Order: sequence, then structure tokens, then C-alpha cells
Amino acid sequence: MAVSDHLSQRPRPVRGVRLGTAEAGIKKPGRKDLVVMEFAPDTEFAAVFTRNRFRAAPVVLAERHLATEQPRRLALVNTGNANAGTGAAGERDALACCTALAAEFDLGPEAVLPFSTGVIGEPLPVDRIRGGIEPALADLSEDGWLRAAEGILTTDTRPKAESVELDSGGQRFTITGIAKGAGMIRPNMATMLAFVATDAALPAETLDRLFRAAVDRSFNRITVDGDTSTNDGCLLAATGSAGASPEPEAFAEALQALCIRLAQALVRDAEGATRFVTIRVQGGATQLESEAVAFTVAESPLVKTALFAGDPNWGRILAAVGRAGVADLDVADVRIWLGEQCIVRNGGRAEEYDEPRAADYMAGEDIEIAIDLARGSAEATVWTCDFSYDYVRINAEYRS
Amino acid sequence: MAVSDHLSQRPRPVRGVRLGTAEAGIKKPGRKDLVVMEFAPDTEFAAVFTRNRFRAAPVVLAERHLATEQPRRLALVNTGNANAGTGAAGERDALACCTALAAEFDLGPEAVLPFSTGVIGEPLPVDRIRGGIEPALADLSEDGWLRAAEGILTTDTRPKAESVELDSGGQRFTITGIAKGAGMIRPNMATMLAFVATDAALPAETLDRLFRAAVDRSFNRITVDGDTSTNDGCLLAATGSAGASPEPEAFAEALQALCIRLAQALVRDAEGATRFVTIRVQGGATQLESEAVAFTVAESPLVKTALFAGDPNWGRILAAVGRAGVADLDVADVRIWLGEQCIVRNGGRAEEYDEPRAADYMAGEDIEIAIDLARGSAEATVWTCDFSYDYVRINAEYRS
Repeated sequence: MAVSDHLSQRPRPVRGVRLGTAEAGIKKPGRKDLVVMEFAPDTEFAAVFTRNRFRAAPVVLAERHLATEQPRRLALVNTGNANAGTGAAGERDALACCTALAAEFDLGPEAVLPFSTGVIGEPLPVDRIRGGIEPALADLSEDGWLRAAEGILTTDTRPKAESVELDSGGQRFTITGIAKGAGMIRPNMATMLAFVATDAALPAETLDRLFRAAVDRSFNRITVDGDTSTNDGCLLAATGSAGASPEPEAFAEALQALCIRLAQALVRDAEGATRFVTIRVQGGATQLESEAVAFTVAESPLVKTALFAGDPNWGRILAAVGRAGVADLDVADVRIWLGEQCIVRNGGRAEEYDEPRAADYMAGEDIEIAIDLARGSAEATVWTCDFSYDYVRINAEYRS
Repeated sequence: MAVSDHLSQRPRPVRGVRLGTAEAGIKKPGRKDLVVMEFAPDTEFAAVFTRNRFRAAPVVLAERHLATEQPRRLALVNTGNANAGTGAAGERDALACCTALAAEFDLGPEAVLPFSTGVIGEPLPVDRIRGGIEPALADLSEDGWLRAAEGILTTDTRPKAESVELDSGGQRFTITGIAKGAGMIRPNMATMLAFVATDAALPAETLDRLFRAAVDRSFNRITVDGDTSTNDGCLLAATGSAGASPEPEAFAEALQALCIRLAQALVRDAEGATRFVTIRVQGGATQLESEAVAFTVAESPLVKTALFAGDPNWGRILAAVGRAGVADLDVADVRIWLGEQCIVRNGGRAEEYDEPRAADYMAGEDIEIAIDLARGSAEATVWTCDFSYDYVRINAEYRS
């Protein structure tokens, strides 16, 4: 199951980035499961990782390599195994894979940023990964984005790849990204896995600031099940191969637009999703409380099962707003809309509420719930999906 | 679906309390849906209600009546309609029902404590409730507990009733309680609905203190889906009909034991539950963080679907511990047990982990997960259930 998405699935090449994908036999035969990315020598990076205190070995290692003075030239991504909950052996295994890839370029292991996704707690199949490096390198190409988008999937049903182009200062820049998601999604300063690259030349500090801002309004605003992964990682590479720098504000806007499209695509392909739901909270006293209300509604199992049923169950929405931790909230002031229709006012059902019209709206694939807290001017938007039989089936069958 | 429970289902009468149950036609024909409780004149009450900011009309009214100087003599409970999200009309309707019942005893409406549970947002069927009062009064009896336990159910599959007896100071006291639950259960200073009575004579302040302590360790330690109801209410009545007072510590212990049995019975009969799960967190720096970890694990959809599948998925448990908001937690110190078996140590799978043995344990109906945070001596125990297809089905079909 999946909700139809809005991605072009036609990622444009980014000068200075080549991608190679291989079948290393980590997942079942015939499944792409290993991706190598090669970046031009002076590429600058920004990255955000999971805030889960339980961090997978590749997350620990990638952060360490990003902190070194050595140039980073490569990313190595495997699916089928998260290398999480694997203790000291997990770090040794991740390092061994980095060393093997770096050796092909006569570099030290710090040149490689490792990423893993898949089953937690199983030893990383180091030999298979090492065996997949040669075919992945043979596949390196500027046109490798879509194959790479396939190579990082777990329970996702389709790849997610998108590009935006930006004209700034008489120059054209490309930003291209791929992402994977599906479940265990409540990113906290990161998403499952996303890789974004641009040919723009931007200093590391600017890149870091713009990327964190973009992630905060995109990957950090989605939730499937409220479970934050141990392996969340999100990388932005700026190769500078365009030989010019865009105006930072314009770049920030284009970057955020791309990240939002990818983040929404993760939700649209979330485990068992049959509806894509936008929760807009406005009128909050602070952005923090607006986010808290939006996430509480988005993660309420009762709201999510009502969404699955196509049931305009405003009582469950109001009940979730009421338990979101806004201590002095007056529910008599709260208003709630389903699409264009006001459904809650003065602590109860709005007079103009029209059940058949609301049910008709809920039958669609794209649902928008707007909530006005009437306390101030802060707002927050969160994207989520419904909770279906298939979510239970997928997660009862799949060993994450 | 339901997990087998451990209640006697043989509630003992409490001197000074009579209960009457009727079919008022609020739910489908032939279903008991109205309960009247009559208390002896000098009965003292303690009550706790939902902390949801969205509070149903009967909750508002019951609190108001409890705060008056007038003696409270009656409780009026209906199922099939929550009278929540009904605004000012909802309060008028609840008051009209209280007035009608009180008039039968020549009392004012403040003598009646109203409770409602069922569908949110529909107008209370006042005429049906008024029509049910006479048959409910005709049914009043000290032996009416089990019928009343049936009369307050919504999606529950069976009544929950239990008694404990207490010998203190050469006197025997009875404490009897009934409760209903099933879904939208993450009580916050209360449960869905629970009514407990004793013939002990206890001053109101003592009663209040002991009841809050008992509720904190029982109804406030269960979670089905993390959704806090708008109608949670929990009432303790002490009729004093025994003509004596027990030793408070002994009474507190017996009361807490009864409340824990009823709370656990709610989880065992939770919507779609196939397993009853105890989460014990020990070694916390504070009780608050121990509770946070226990509830985060208990409410993780990924842990709950793994429990449904009987999958000893320790990685999901560890991932939930890691995102529970304990900022400086070192996962390398965390240990996790499944029953008697240590499954996680040093941030990964324990050496002695035995998958067939763990899977065998997970196939049972009663599962215990113990988590040692190794940070201090605080602990917390939470009871929950798994997340099944039936939870989705029930909540996609039922309009709460």
C-alpha cells in the first residue's frame, strides 16, 4: 500500500558526484543493496543524525569521520542490515568496510562516510559488503541517482528521487536528493536516510546552517509511528563543481523545497499508508506547543485508525489536542477544519458540520486537518499517514 | 480478542451501597446501559478525573457536585454516549439527568455524580436516560455489583469486578470495585471509569490521599494506545457502614491491590489484545525517567506489533529506550530481560541470548520485560498489551 506521490523520479546529475549500485547479497538475491557515492575533492558536507541515545555503529563512525581534518570523498551505504545494537564489534565492522572502500582510492578510512539501514542486532556481513565494492565502483556514474535510490530501500515500495534547479547570480545550480523511509519514522534532527547533493560552492558553516534549517522544516516534521530510528542520517554534499556560489537565501529556499518533497514522499510510501495527512496547527502561543499539538494528533492511534476508516471523527482529534500537554489550553476556543470545512468550534461540533460532506472529503487520499489554538501566532505543519491493517502486518512480519 | 484475566468476578456487597442497572435503549436493545448507585447518608467520597484539557460535560459536573457542601448520595452512569464535545448543551443535559434522579429522593441535583462513556460528540439522549431511571431504581440491591459492571461496558468483552477483604483492628472491611476500559487508555490521574466502595469509615482527607496514591500505582500505570480519554473518572466511596475505621496503612495496601487487579484487567481486555505485558524499569535516576522509559516502550507501535507477532525483537525495545528522553543515557550500560532471560547487555545482544528460548517465551499470553538503566535506584512498572489487527479493526469500525 502507498499513497500516490508527487515526485518526478527523474533526478538530475550533479556535477562532481558519481554513484554506483550493486547487489552484494545482503538482502535477497537480485536486490540492489549496496551504494557507493564518490564526491569531487573539495566537496563540503553537512549532516544531521538521529537523536536516539541508541545510535548505530555507522552513525557513530560517520560523525567521527566528519569531524576529522581529512577530506571526505566517499559514502558507503548498505541496506538489509542496520549494524545497530552490535556493540564494539559493530564499529570494527563498519570501519573495516570503510577501510576496504578507501583503499581503492589510496585513502584512509576517514575518507568514507558509512550508512546502514535494515535489521537491528545482526552482525554486519562485512565480507559481502567488501565483495560488493568492486561491482559498485564499476557502476559509478553521474547518472546513478535513481539506481542508488533503489539500492537504499528497505520496506519502501518505491524509490524516492527528486531534483530542483536554481538560477542565482546568472548561474544555474542543481540540487538532487534521494531518501528512504517506510517505518520507525519520527525523525529527531534527521530522517531515516537521505542524501542530497549540489554543485553549488558553499562554505561548510553556511551549508550546515542552511541544511539544519531545511531538515527542521521537512524531515523533522514527518511521523509515521512515532518511533525514532537508531540509524537516521541525512547528508548534504556541496561539490562546488559549478564553480560559483548561489545567493544563500535562494539556495535555502530551493533546498527546503526539495527536502519537503522528499520528506512527504517518505510519508506517502510509509508502511501500510493509505492516506497522506497534513496537520497544520496555527494560533499557538509558541512554536514548541504548536509542534506538540501537531505531533500528538499525528501520532494518536485513534486518530490514525479513524483516518484509515475514512471516518471524520473530530472527537478523537479534539481529544488528542486536549492531551498534548498545553496546560492552560481552553478547548472552548479551539477550532478545527477538515479541508475547507470547519468541524469544531466552542468545544464541540461546529453548527455547519455536514457529516456526508466530511465523510466525502475523508474518502480522498490527501487529507488536511487544520487546528487553530487561538492563543497566539505561532504555527507548525506536520505530515503523517493513517494506521492500517498493513502497518500491523508489515511490522509483525518484518524483523527490524 | 482478550487475554485471560485473573479476576474472581465475584464482587462482594458493600454495606451502605446499592446498585441498580437498566436497559435504557441508549445502546442497542437488550444491552444494559444505565447504572444507578445509591450510597448511605454519611458516605465520604474521593475522586480523580482525566487530565485531558478536553473534559466531557459529566466530568465537569461531577467535579462541581463533589465540591459542594451538599451530601452526595447517588451516582448515575450511562454508556453508549460520552456527552463529550457537546459544549454548553452537554452540561445542561447532564444536569437534567441529575435533577431527574435526585427528584426521586427529594434531593437537589448536587446529590448526584454523573458519569458517561461512549461515542464523543453526539447529544446525550436525555429522555432515554430519564426513562431508564425508574427501572434502575426498581433494580437497586446490595448484590447489584456484577450487573452494574456489565452496565458500564463499551467495547469491553467482559465485565470487571473484584473484591478484597481486610481485617484490621478486630474488624472485617470489604472493598469492592468495578471498572471498564478497552481503548483510548492512557489514564492521566484517572482511568476510563472505575467505581470502588468500602464499608470502612474514613475521613475525606485520608480517603483522598490513599485513593490518589492507589490510582497512581494502578490505573495511572496502564496504557493501551497512549490516548487519554475525555471521560476518565474514578470514584471511591466509603460508606462507614461497618461502623469502624481500619488502620490506614493496611487499608491503603488492600485498596492498591484491588486497584491494580482492576487496572490489569482493563489491559487484559483491551481492544484487540492478545498478550498482557508488564514493563518493569529499574535502576533509574528518578522515578519520572523510569516511568518515561516504561511508557515509551509500552507505547511504541513497533514494540507492540513485535509483541503481537511473538517476536523477541530486542532491537525495537532498545530503540524505544533510546528515544525516551533520558538525555545522558548510556545505552552501553542498559540491560534488558525477557522473563528470566537477559537479552541485551553492553549496547547489544547478550551473549547468552537464545532465540528459540526467547521466541518460546514470547509465545505465551503473559510477557514481562525488565529494563535496568543502571543510573540509580528508582523504578516504575507499567502494564500494557500488544497491537493487533483487531485493534485497527475495532477502531476503524467504532465511532468513539
